[in-house]
Amino acid sequence: MRLMAKESSSTGRAKAQAAYQGDRALEGLLARSKGRGGVRYRSAREVRALLKGVLAAPFGPDPDAWLDLVGAGLGARLKTQLKALRTEMESRPPPAPPSPAERLRAVRARLKKSRLDGFIVGLADAHQGEYVPESEARLSWLTGFTGSAGLAVVMADKAALFVDGRYTLQARNQVDTKRFVLHHISRMPPAKWIAANMPKGVRLGFDPWLLTPRDVARFEAAAADAGAKLVPAARNPIDAVWRHRPAAPISPVRPLPKRFTGRSSLDKRQQIAAGLAARGARAAVLSAPDSIAWLLNIRGQDVEFAPLPMAFAVIARDGKVQLAIDPRKMTDAALAHLGRDVKVIAIQDLGPALDRLAKGGRRVEVDPGRIPYWIARRLARGGAVVAEAADPCVAPKAAKNRVELKGIRAAHLRDGAALTRFLAWFDGEAPKGRLTEVQAAAKVDAFRAANDLFQGLSFPTISGSGPNGAIVHYRATAASDRRIRPGDVFLLDSGGQYLDGTTDVTRTMWVGGGPAPNAALRDVYTRVLKGNIQLATVRFPAGTSGSQLDVLARRALWDGGFEYDHGTGHGVGHFLNVHEGPQRVSQIPNTVALEPGMVLSDEPGFYKTGAFGIRIETLLAVIPVKDGVGKRPMRGFETLTLAPIDRRLIDPKLLSEEERHWLNAYHARVAKALTPLLDPATKAWLKRAAKPI
Amino acid sequence: MRLMAKESSSTGRAKAQAAYQGDRALEGLLARSKGRGGVRYRSAREVRALLKGVLAAPFGPDPDAWLDLVGAGLGARLKTQLKALRTEMESRPPPAPPSPAERLRAVRARLKKSRLDGFIVGLADAHQGEYVPESEARLSWLTGFTGSAGLAVVMADKAALFVDGRYTLQARNQVDTKRFVLHHISRMPPAKWIAANMPKGVRLGFDPWLLTPRDVARFEAAAADAGAKLVPAARNPIDAVWRHRPAAPISPVRPLPKRFTGRSSLDKRQQIAAGLAARGARAAVLSAPDSIAWLLNIRGQDVEFAPLPMAFAVIARDGKVQLAIDPRKMTDAALAHLGRDVKVIAIQDLGPALDRLAKGGRRVEVDPGRIPYWIARRLARGGAVVAEAADPCVAPKAAKNRVELKGIRAAHLRDGAALTRFLAWFDGEAPKGRLTEVQAAAKVDAFRAANDLFQGLSFPTISGSGPNGAIVHYRATAASDRRIRPGDVFLLDSGGQYLDGTTDVTRTMWVGGGPAPNAALRDVYTRVLKGNIQLATVRFPAGTSGSQLDVLARRALWDGGFEYDHGTGHGVGHFLNVHEGPQRVSQIPNTVALEPGMVLSDEPGFYKTGAFGIRIETLLAVIPVKDGVGKRPMRGFETLTLAPIDRRLIDPKLLSEEERHWLNAYHARVAKALTPLLDPATKAWLKRAAKPI
Repeated sequence: MRLMAKESSSTGRAKAQAAYQGDRALEGLLARSKGRGGVRYRSAREVRALLKGVLAAPFGPDPDAWLDLVGAGLGARLKTQLKALRTEMESRPPPAPPSPAERLRAVRARLKKSRLDGFIVGLADAHQGEYVPESEARLSWLTGFTGSAGLAVVMADKAALFVDGRYTLQARNQVDTKRFVLHHISRMPPAKWIAANMPKGVRLGFDPWLLTPRDVARFEAAAADAGAKLVPAARNPIDAVWRHRPAAPISPVRPLPKRFTGRSSLDKRQQIAAGLAARGARAAVLSAPDSIAWLLNIRGQDVEFAPLPMAFAVIARDGKVQLAIDPRKMTDAALAHLGRDVKVIAIQDLGPALDRLAKGGRRVEVDPGRIPYWIARRLARGGAVVAEAADPCVAPKAAKNRVELKGIRAAHLRDGAALTRFLAWFDGEAPKGRLTEVQAAAKVDAFRAANDLFQGLSFPTISGSGPNGAIVHYRATAASDRRIRPGDVFLLDSGGQYLDGTTDVTRTMWVGGGPAPNAALRDVYTRVLKGNIQLATVRFPAGTSGSQLDVLARRALWDGGFEYDHGTGHGVGHFLNVHEGPQRVSQIPNTVALEPGMVLSDEPGFYKTGAFGIRIETLLAVIPVKDGVGKRPMRGFETLTLAPIDRRLIDPKLLSEEERHWLNAYHARVAKALTPLLDPATKAWLKRAAKPI
Repeated sequence: MRLMAKESSSTGRAKAQAAYQGDRALEGLLARSKGRGGVRYRSAREVRALLKGVLAAPFGPDPDAWLDLVGAGLGARLKTQLKALRTEMESRPPPAPPSPAERLRAVRARLKKSRLDGFIVGLADAHQGEYVPESEARLSWLTGFTGSAGLAVVMADKAALFVDGRYTLQARNQVDTKRFVLHHISRMPPAKWIAANMPKGVRLGFDPWLLTPRDVARFEAAAADAGAKLVPAARNPIDAVWRHRPAAPISPVRPLPKRFTGRSSLDKRQQIAAGLAARGARAAVLSAPDSIAWLLNIRGQDVEFAPLPMAFAVIARDGKVQLAIDPRKMTDAALAHLGRDVKVIAIQDLGPALDRLAKGGRRVEVDPGRIPYWIARRLARGGAVVAEAADPCVAPKAAKNRVELKGIRAAHLRDGAALTRFLAWFDGEAPKGRLTEVQAAAKVDAFRAANDLFQGLSFPTISGSGPNGAIVHYRATAASDRRIRPGDVFLLDSGGQYLDGTTDVTRTMWVGGGPAPNAALRDVYTRVLKGNIQLATVRFPAGTSGSQLDVLARRALWDGGFEYDHGTGHGVGHFLNVHEGPQRVSQIPNTVALEPGMVLSDEPGFYKTGAFGIRIETLLAVIPVKDGVGKRPMRGFETLTLAPIDRRLIDPKLLSEEERHWLNAYHARVAKALTPLLDPATKAWLKRAAKPI
């Protein structure tokens, strides 16, 4: 997604090619400009500060959308100068950072000054999301490690980095192991290391914004075991010494129209407020940007791959909301959309707002697994009864309404057409033996980007051929890129963000032009497919959770002695996070009932290290099905994803009659639905690819 | 089991028929008797006290076993007089209890005296087991309610009884609802009631022996919500006012020989001790009688249906054990077997023993879901670091060793023969329309009792015909007994305790002599059978839990719109509890990996209220199976239960090829294994019943 944004922005630059004429000229234009809704800034300094944030955010499909943050309906000359300033700032190289050794030394000096003996450095920001802005990437700043899971503990005389099995190799390459001892997180968990390495009486610091109350309880237990004390730091020691720290991202917050959301924000706020009243709570504090985006029917683009505005919010029992956010992100359209019942406040005003809320021992709900510890503590100190409860938006957000489901189906239709165009193209190109993984990923991303309502990718495309396909979270880079060869197995996991929905689909293809796939490969591919079908076709009583269904996707693999070491399915948002709770299909226990409207992935796989990877992923929506003999309502799944499954890799003898019928019916449905959207060549290809077996 | 014990004891009485000649004569005999190991008692008063306890315990297969508790190798005349005294005491009617109203009044007076505003009355004793002695049946003494799940809260001006859906009707019949308000425990949980009904500042008492630390934490949270305080009572107010309270049971503790256990107690103690040392713990306190029985290779009979000695134990890091138990239960053989490393102490000496253990801040492990709160508190007060950890015997006890498994297989062979004898008999008798459920249960119990090594039933036989079969925990009584009719569905769930193993099996039979079973019945019966087979035949990677497999037993039912509201499988002990953790197959999340040697039931069912119940239950042992392609070791199940499944109720068209083959192979195996143990008529019947379909 970032790649495409850069491309379109440079095209924009080529057209706008005026040079920046200086801050005084800009201030002159600002002073003279009226704009439709007024111009918000008078000084070039403020505009430069805004632009620093804008440049720290990824760009959406319109690279000039940020101009709305200066004011609505700006004049042409002002726009030209603003774009020229951006170009100038963008092209300036970032200052060279201090060496890793200097960074560690600076942090230790700061710790000493704060009378802390150690500090916990994790990956999460205050919103505990999957993607965090560069300005929050403290662990990689400190250690060099860029994986998606890890934790460091720094003390005056030693430091350790804990990563899981996926990342031990990467960490060894990225991290100065003289300064950071590397540990496998399950063999030497941080808690055990702390207990073994902390002398009694030690003060171990943490940033109360970055840990949740649940995290703190866990670390406190570990510290207590070691006779150490866990101490919330007044200021994060990394932030205190981080020179040239990237700005926090600023992206425009925009309303998402009701034709996409299906429900007004007022209606959602009233539902949440009624729940609070029923539970005797005065308010709930929200810190998950996707919850806030859902509740207020707004979207932003502060991080890659998810249309999120980084923000906090308080929703009170009367349905009124305080939205704590950098006010510079708010477009006029968003402010008008939010109306009088949503008050925008600056992040630094959240504390006093919590104090007011807490007064008189009021009951305030927080989600102990999501909220910053800082917020819970501030509420408690202000006198509130802090009630631990699940984020009240999570459950209603997960069960998509009719309009959202309609949008999700429409998004899957366009997305399936784009993927099928790619598959047809790939089937012609790849056998020539010249295509690389990076080129394949770029091609499918471009097919998607041409779709209506496309806003970006929903995650980095996984384009893995041969042995690279066996790396579950593989991302093809210039360094790892591999030429795809005839006789390869090619795994493509990709998805898009559209205004009407989020997609996520995996197909595994045989690369033609060489030998036919052998029996062993077809055996295990067919077992993966059987698992996918077994889950897709189950019907189950209301109240059943995804954990209960997980084995259905595994049994055919187990029968053959195979297994995959990842979950079977994750929840998916509606033009929100591609990984969305609370439901999931997993071996890890989860008691969340699958309710109609929930969207889940169904993605069994098999990975042979050094050889190939297989995964077949479709998204499913939970739907009600007709009652059986019992009184309990029954549920089932509707398959949302529309893209052919490679028939060449299937051994039909391994399929049951029911499974064969399902596959043929699915292919007939895919062909019928996609054909009207396809060019003649793809159409002809799909006709062959979707033939019954 | 109790029924049979009474029968054999009265036979014994008929033979021994000397009258009791008075306490002075008895004391004379005691004084003159030497015995092999000496006589333990000199006074008739002590013998009478012993006998009160003996009469409070159920009898095992030998009704005179208790004589060993007076001394080994007693003379014939002394034995005769002891038995006569027993007969005299047994025949004396128990004094009439005070009225329910008086009991409640007495408890309230006592509460006032102890300055408590309320008290929690549950069902559990200090050992948290499934069956509790009469002396611990406080809830039924107070309320009249005799169900297996419930809780009362008594306050000065109100009282409430909380029961679940199974028991609302029974509670209404048994309880004075003017004095006790009845609540459905999930609609009005006690915590909610407490929060709503306790004025602020109230002191709510509980018996620290009867709640676990986990229970206390839960009630404390509820009390805190109401502004009330949870207070451990120095003495249980019910015990303080309970007149004519039954004695605590006294049954002989006996060694279980190594030919049944397969491992010496020393070996087990060393294993547990090594674990304690590895975890840095000084000792663990045990309160689960089955853990203690397993650890020490002893068995008792203090409660019905499980060969348990009620006791506590402390195992130290050096492998030495203190066994806190009423010393009168210890036979000479048991004392010799335990040896010098196991010190028997009286229950009242447990407190001082814990104090000695705790001294100097030593780490002591307790299982917070099993141990009495009293023990954890005593340890903490004594200065111990109380470490919450699972009872260390639970995991090794669950994975049966080779010798135990051999015994379990042998027990299942004899048990299967007894059950098959019953099934053949039933198939001839029931169509006559004269047999009742109680008679059927007595018949199968008698067939089992004739088996070698039989020690008693492993639970009360469930013998449910027609609509009674749909009551999941049905027990046929004189009041509920029903005549079994041609065309009925008959559900029989039964099992035995043998020295070499514990069995539990359910078969559902069609009662002939009337119409053939209709298609709808055969459809759902076949779906239950499919579920049973699907679970029995799965293979799975090491680390898989029972919760993950549960759906396999349900899917065929779900496909037809059916469901059952109970777990699919429970763990089973080796001549211990028929319900044994930690493993289970259930929709309730459970992360315990299924390890080789674990025994589990596989019992899907379907219940049509007012019409019939279907359940097919076999026991399975987890076994290693040959590796597949992956590196992870794979597991599977061995079917232990040997008894035919009613072919008349099966619709073969609904079975897959694999399922049909499994059924035919199973029936062939059953016929081959059982035939040598059967009489000619049963043999001929089994030949027909086990024919391939």
